[in-house]
Amino acid sequence: MVPLNNHSTFISTKDFNKIKEFSKNKKTPFLLIETKKIEKNYDELKKNLPFAKIYYAVKANPENEVIKVLDKKGSNFDVATIFEMNQLIKLGIPTDRMSFGNTIKKEEDIAYAYSQGIRLFATDSESDLNKISRQAPGSKVFFRLLCDGSGADWPLSRKFGAYPDMIFRLALRAKKLNLIPYGLSFHVGSQQRDIGQWDNAISQCKYLFDSLADADIELKLINIGGGFPSDYLQPTQDIAVYAKEVTRFLREDFGDKLPEIIIEPGRSLVADSGVLVSEIIMISSKSTTISCDWVYTDIGKFGGLIETIDEAIKYPILSDNLNTKDHTKEVILAGPTCDSMDILYENYKYKLDKNIKEGDKLYFLTTGAYTASYSSVYFNGFPPLKVYII
Amino acid sequence: MVPLNNHSTFISTKDFNKIKEFSKNKKTPFLLIETKKIEKNYDELKKNLPFAKIYYAVKANPENEVIKVLDKKGSNFDVATIFEMNQLIKLGIPTDRMSFGNTIKKEEDIAYAYSQGIRLFATDSESDLNKISRQAPGSKVFFRLLCDGSGADWPLSRKFGAYPDMIFRLALRAKKLNLIPYGLSFHVGSQQRDIGQWDNAISQCKYLFDSLADADIELKLINIGGGFPSDYLQPTQDIAVYAKEVTRFLREDFGDKLPEIIIEPGRSLVADSGVLVSEIIMISSKSTTISCDWVYTDIGKFGGLIETIDEAIKYPILSDNLNTKDHTKEVILAGPTCDSMDILYENYKYKLDKNIKEGDKLYFLTTGAYTASYSSVYFNGFPPLKVYII
Repeated sequence: MVPLNNHSTFISTKDFNKIKEFSKNKKTPFLLIETKKIEKNYDELKKNLPFAKIYYAVKANPENEVIKVLDKKGSNFDVATIFEMNQLIKLGIPTDRMSFGNTIKKEEDIAYAYSQGIRLFATDSESDLNKISRQAPGSKVFFRLLCDGSGADWPLSRKFGAYPDMIFRLALRAKKLNLIPYGLSFHVGSQQRDIGQWDNAISQCKYLFDSLADADIELKLINIGGGFPSDYLQPTQDIAVYAKEVTRFLREDFGDKLPEIIIEPGRSLVADSGVLVSEIIMISSKSTTISCDWVYTDIGKFGGLIETIDEAIKYPILSDNLNTKDHTKEVILAGPTCDSMDILYENYKYKLDKNIKEGDKLYFLTTGAYTASYSSVYFNGFPPLKVYII
Repeated sequence: MVPLNNHSTFISTKDFNKIKEFSKNKKTPFLLIETKKIEKNYDELKKNLPFAKIYYAVKANPENEVIKVLDKKGSNFDVATIFEMNQLIKLGIPTDRMSFGNTIKKEEDIAYAYSQGIRLFATDSESDLNKISRQAPGSKVFFRLLCDGSGADWPLSRKFGAYPDMIFRLALRAKKLNLIPYGLSFHVGSQQRDIGQWDNAISQCKYLFDSLADADIELKLINIGGGFPSDYLQPTQDIAVYAKEVTRFLREDFGDKLPEIIIEPGRSLVADSGVLVSEIIMISSKSTTISCDWVYTDIGKFGGLIETIDEAIKYPILSDNLNTKDHTKEVILAGPTCDSMDILYENYKYKLDKNIKEGDKLYFLTTGAYTASYSSVYFNGFPPLKVYII
């Protein structure tokens, strides 16, 4: 299917055989998460950015087992909502290891988070700052810079963050409100393949550190967000290269004495721990004269693969036959619902094994992030995606 | 918000006051469904297309109370999956009032549907036809023509259906397989505002009726699908106009002796029964010099408003103040999650009441279709959309 000249780029034959064995006689679709890979990713990130404090972005994969593994490793956690916060509290994670990373917060939720012990909040607007000052007095706040995410496969937008002029004002106001204007954050866009984007953002941080120092505000923290990549079809650099470059950008601007650095990895920690196993329901021709067949699988946009919107994320897809010289059949891949929008890849033509048939399994690799929790509750009657953890 | 010169186009002041009263002291977001409207829509459709058999497209809104109301009215049901089928069976609906409308079916699901009594199947490929012949011998099948849905606000794609040359072949094959090649179906695209699309599709049906008659196959049914509109911001004709035109197209091609006609309304029956009540979480400026504010509500793309993708469906949105001369504040509307893609309307600028503030309610009208069941299971920790039925 994938024109994988070398499928071992994505998975070893040994690992793949293990997954095939696990999948036997199991009803598809399901997501299989191997937590060992998450530990490995965590260790690697820690090794490459030893000075950074890791806050796992829970939204990427909120499975309890995933959280537990990262808890054991000593990770901190970035929560998007009080729902995620409550989930983590139930798992015994202390709130002083959490940040409330969503800049869009109801006042009652800030109050609740504060009552549970959260003292570190992201913010990007005067309104939110006022709410924090009322409900979470004395807390540390960090201000999110607006990045528009060019170069990212799952693009950012202008939804989050504010421009430097506004950030400057917010920091002054935070001090006045007896909050602690503690630092800055940015997010260069998920699956960001242009490492230079960190350079731009870090330069903006430097500028704001300096100009706020002139106003007697000493910032102490930079949250460099997420954006480190996972292995999809589009080629990326290794985490080590990212880490090395980001470190260089930081040193260039801040010299030997770096501020506290927080990183909020989501995708890069968990994506490659997941394999989504599905089955081909139907292969069909639309006409007697069209050569490109449609292949319908039992997983689609509404069952967990929403990141195929605009074909943004291109998962490596394997079938049982790994012999790439048999992969000559160009197909359009679509999901099982009656929704016309539920097509996975139509412009980009995956190449499948020429002998592929209905009932065969398809393995979507790198599906450990932003899949199961996106899955719809009952669309077309389909139940949410099942998850197995090994 | 909406530049509604006349909000009464969408809702009467009396109805709106009732909704405001209901919403008091209720935690947002939630969807409020008024089943009375569904009954009214059903009656109106029946009156305007008296010769058509109605098969409600369950996927549009699968709430039990919605199904029950339509059951009482005598509606038939188009089910997309065995999950929907099982839900209806539990509600006591006999399977001879259901069709299995999804052309993408697992063989085991066809077998199960047949064992439960389903004898009417949509199909569009040889593979599916073979499965039906093995698992549902002697059943009636109707063949779906491929329409690409130009003119529809929620566009179709080439995902479903086959071209006439293929349909012709499939009908011959069905007969050979001892199935009953019973009719044709098409779907012109959801919220289709170009009524002429039915004309094209019905002409194709006529052509296939005739050419198959020459091959000794007498088709008996046309399933004219869904596509009748609901009231969103984009102007549409009344159902009566649609019905009149479609009837005219049918008469032009088939004269006085119409084949059996099935219609599969989803959106047009249920959309205007729903009001999604949400709250403004935050209003913010990105810069000291940008005039267009961002308004963040507690409902977004992943909580049920997925049809805002590409701003395809533009819901009428009201605030408590209905005085349209106060609606001068252009805004960008976005949802509450940490996902950068979770923006509702950015290109199309809704106009809000100039005095709108955080904590105010926003009422998304015409949200009874394709909302709650699309809602994600736990994205960012948010629970699925709550539904109240009155």
